[in-house]
Amino acid sequence: MKQHNPLITLTTDFGLADGYVGTMKGIILGIAPDARLVDITHQIAAQDVRQAAFVLYSAYPFFPPHTVHLVVVDPGVGSARRPVALRTPAGTFVGPDNGVFTYVLAHEPVEALVELADPRYRLSEVSRTFHGRDVFAPAAAHLAAGVLFAALGPSISDPVTFPLPRLEIGSGAVAGEVLLADRFGNVVTSVGRLVWDGAELVLEPAFQDAGGRKQDARRAAPTRFRANEAVVVVAGQEIVGVRHTYAEAEPGEALALVSSEGHLEIAVREGSAAQRLGLRPGDAVEVRL
Amino acid sequence: MKQHNPLITLTTDFGLADGYVGTMKGIILGIAPDARLVDITHQIAAQDVRQAAFVLYSAYPFFPPHTVHLVVVDPGVGSARRPVALRTPAGTFVGPDNGVFTYVLAHEPVEALVELADPRYRLSEVSRTFHGRDVFAPAAAHLAAGVLFAALGPSISDPVTFPLPRLEIGSGAVAGEVLLADRFGNVVTSVGRLVWDGAELVLEPAFQDAGGRKQDARRAAPTRFRANEAVVVVAGQEIVGVRHTYAEAEPGEALALVSSEGHLEIAVREGSAAQRLGLRPGDAVEVRL
Amino acid sequence: MKQHNPLITLTTDFGLADGYVGTMKGIILGIAPDARLVDITHQIAAQDVRQAAFVLYSAYPFFPPHTVHLVVVDPGVGSARRPVALRTPAGTFVGPDNGVFTYVLAHEPVEALVELADPRYRLSEVSRTFHGRDVFAPAAAHLAAGVLFAALGPSISDPVTFPLPRLEIGSGAVAGEVLLADRFGNVVTSVGRLVWDGAELVLEPAFQDAGGRKQDARRAAPTRFRANEAVVVVAGQEIVGVRHTYAEAEPGEALALVSSEGHLEIAVREGSAAQRLGLRPGDAVEVRL
Repeated sequence: MKQHNPLITLTTDFGLADGYVGTMKGIILGIAPDARLVDITHQIAAQDVRQAAFVLYSAYPFFPPHTVHLVVVDPGVGSARRPVALRTPAGTFVGPDNGVFTYVLAHEPVEALVELADPRYRLSEVSRTFHGRDVFAPAAAHLAAGVLFAALGPSISDPVTFPLPRLEIGSGAVAGEVLLADRFGNVVTSVGRLVWDGAELVLEPAFQDAGGRKQDARRAAPTRFRANEAVVVVAGQEIVGVRHTYAEAEPGEALALVSSEGHLEIAVREGSAAQRLGLRPGDAVEVRL
Repeated sequence: MKQHNPLITLTTDFGLADGYVGTMKGIILGIAPDARLVDITHQIAAQDVRQAAFVLYSAYPFFPPHTVHLVVVDPGVGSARRPVALRTPAGTFVGPDNGVFTYVLAHEPVEALVELADPRYRLSEVSRTFHGRDVFAPAAAHLAAGVLFAALGPSISDPVTFPLPRLEIGSGAVAGEVLLADRFGNVVTSVGRLVWDGAELVLEPAFQDAGGRKQDARRAAPTRFRANEAVVVVAGQEIVGVRHTYAEAEPGEALALVSSEGHLEIAVREGSAAQRLGLRPGDAVEVRL
Repeated sequence: MKQHNPLITLTTDFGLADGYVGTMKGIILGIAPDARLVDITHQIAAQDVRQAAFVLYSAYPFFPPHTVHLVVVDPGVGSARRPVALRTPAGTFVGPDNGVFTYVLAHEPVEALVELADPRYRLSEVSRTFHGRDVFAPAAAHLAAGVLFAALGPSISDPVTFPLPRLEIGSGAVAGEVLLADRFGNVVTSVGRLVWDGAELVLEPAFQDAGGRKQDARRAAPTRFRANEAVVVVAGQEIVGVRHTYAEAEPGEALALVSSEGHLEIAVREGSAAQRLGLRPGDAVEVRL
């Protein structure tokens, strides 16, 4: 049987100006010399656990399931928050127990969840300020190198999560909220997951079951509507229709479309919707069907 | 025979704050687990096809010829623009058919050029907004993994290119234009390729034959001039002489030298020529020989 | 005996917007196809040799000793400054002889130090402006690929260093200076290396022996003091006590703690100490024990 190349992704708020990310990679390659390393991003806004959770959600499904996803956005470093590892059929995740895995937990069944307690899988000297280097990178590397999951520490069953973003699906309207803007100023909302079916869009809740994780995430009857008749109301403006592509709008025109993650996206062609409409995370979005 | 490690470079305007680049790498490593990935840059100005073309031109000659160069600067994503792959003796290139390969096409003979049409080498579900993930990354990965070039789709012969930057070589003067500035504010111009020969510089047109690609790119008689007697006129200023190195100027002094790509470069020692001289892409540059 | 994967780190001031770093990696992988490449950072402030030296110092101890650390922060490119390679038990270093290895030289015994003079280990055409590509990347790649260290050029014994930052340890007080701020605005000082021992901190000079490198870097009697009784005086403010973690301060409160490199750090919880206290490199820091 062909052995997989160990594969580790990194998502942090460390930025790229300091040596923090490189230092973590040095630790990893000392422990797992064959590991392949892929940066998801290191430009999460400082300590923004929700942004990190969303960026991870947008990326992890596109990696092979043997990938270890290392996330270090850790406002509580040095406090009592637990370091954890989470195994699912879609990937393994290592990071602080602060909600950063909320969307993963809302999508994937938990195969195993442990606290990173065993000192064999940490650096011998653990600082109070840089667990990315001293705790999380070694754990991810040991997992990628083949250490048994259960060896890392005791099982836990109560991971910290944040409340899932609002998504209320009525018969004639859907109410959601702005999640974040990307570097182009395109604004992603909680209204998803949307899939095209001809001229119609099919909406199935993307985020579900924050409380009861064992419940089936799929609804019996997904919502279905005609894309060109929907009206998106955001920041007091009405945008008529959900388009297929930016090119269907005029330069400078605001439009709604389906983001690459399958969520309702608000964009301005050749401009920034975030700036033009003044949109911020948490702002209300309504879709009149 | 030793097999090459598959090698793929990435050049995009996605920035590093979102998870887009990481997502493309996940796709690639799922298809070509042994591929080595190298970022050229992800900070091309949004949708700036010409900047991407130049940065690619500055980097690809230094990679092994089996490298696959993946470029995703794609203002027309979701529209009718074609996704293409281009094979040359100096490397293989994958990206949108929007001019981003203009300089490659002006330098290298085309061995093969195809439209990426075969659905086997795309994701099963192709979005309208993220062909980097759904079309280009899979194609690059399949090529790096050994799929036959011709399997990707039908041959095409009419790639989109933009007009090459101005370079008029007279007996007593050379007229060109500003191409772009780097992060130090050093300004690269279209006056190239320049090669030192003692105290003289030899100029052979770097960009040629936008129309007739089969024509030999080398001129019979290259232009030759004494570096210290040349006068560079830019933004209404005269800079006397082309120097070998920044250290030959005083701090704060504007100077002309030969860029690392072999083009005429305008710099200010320990300063930004772009800011000091107010230079922008397209501005005229003249060299009086 | 298992062969190590060749491992090369890169630290430059090139930024990530241009293709310079990608170009260097193309050169490296052409020479050493199996090399693993890790970016420490490419966002050193332009030509800031001291910042590069510190970032390198913060990262290299966490890499395997067979790692080649390539550093290109090179204000003197094209001038007479020498290109060098330095071998120590903790790693091999390649870069300009301009002080960038000052902290390495103050920590590690020199096993070998050579000038990169042999043209076989450079590109055939060496520009005057981009030795990262033409001189340093090839040398690092050849070293990683197994070329004998002594083949690169003649031994030298007088590397350039800058004066080490101030650290004066008296019986009742320690005087040091600000080194730099990280992206969070946390300020690292020259007061180190500090190690916790219960409620006490043990201080042993981190940087030593700028002049006499053979001297043992350890002092017979390290300084020891109670963390909660120390008073840190910086920018005219007194901060009482050295804490274990950011979480011990109130939001917005200035605090002192031990940085991830083991140096005295000044921080503001959920804020920027660099901005709030107006701290700049070289500013005085005093610790009253």
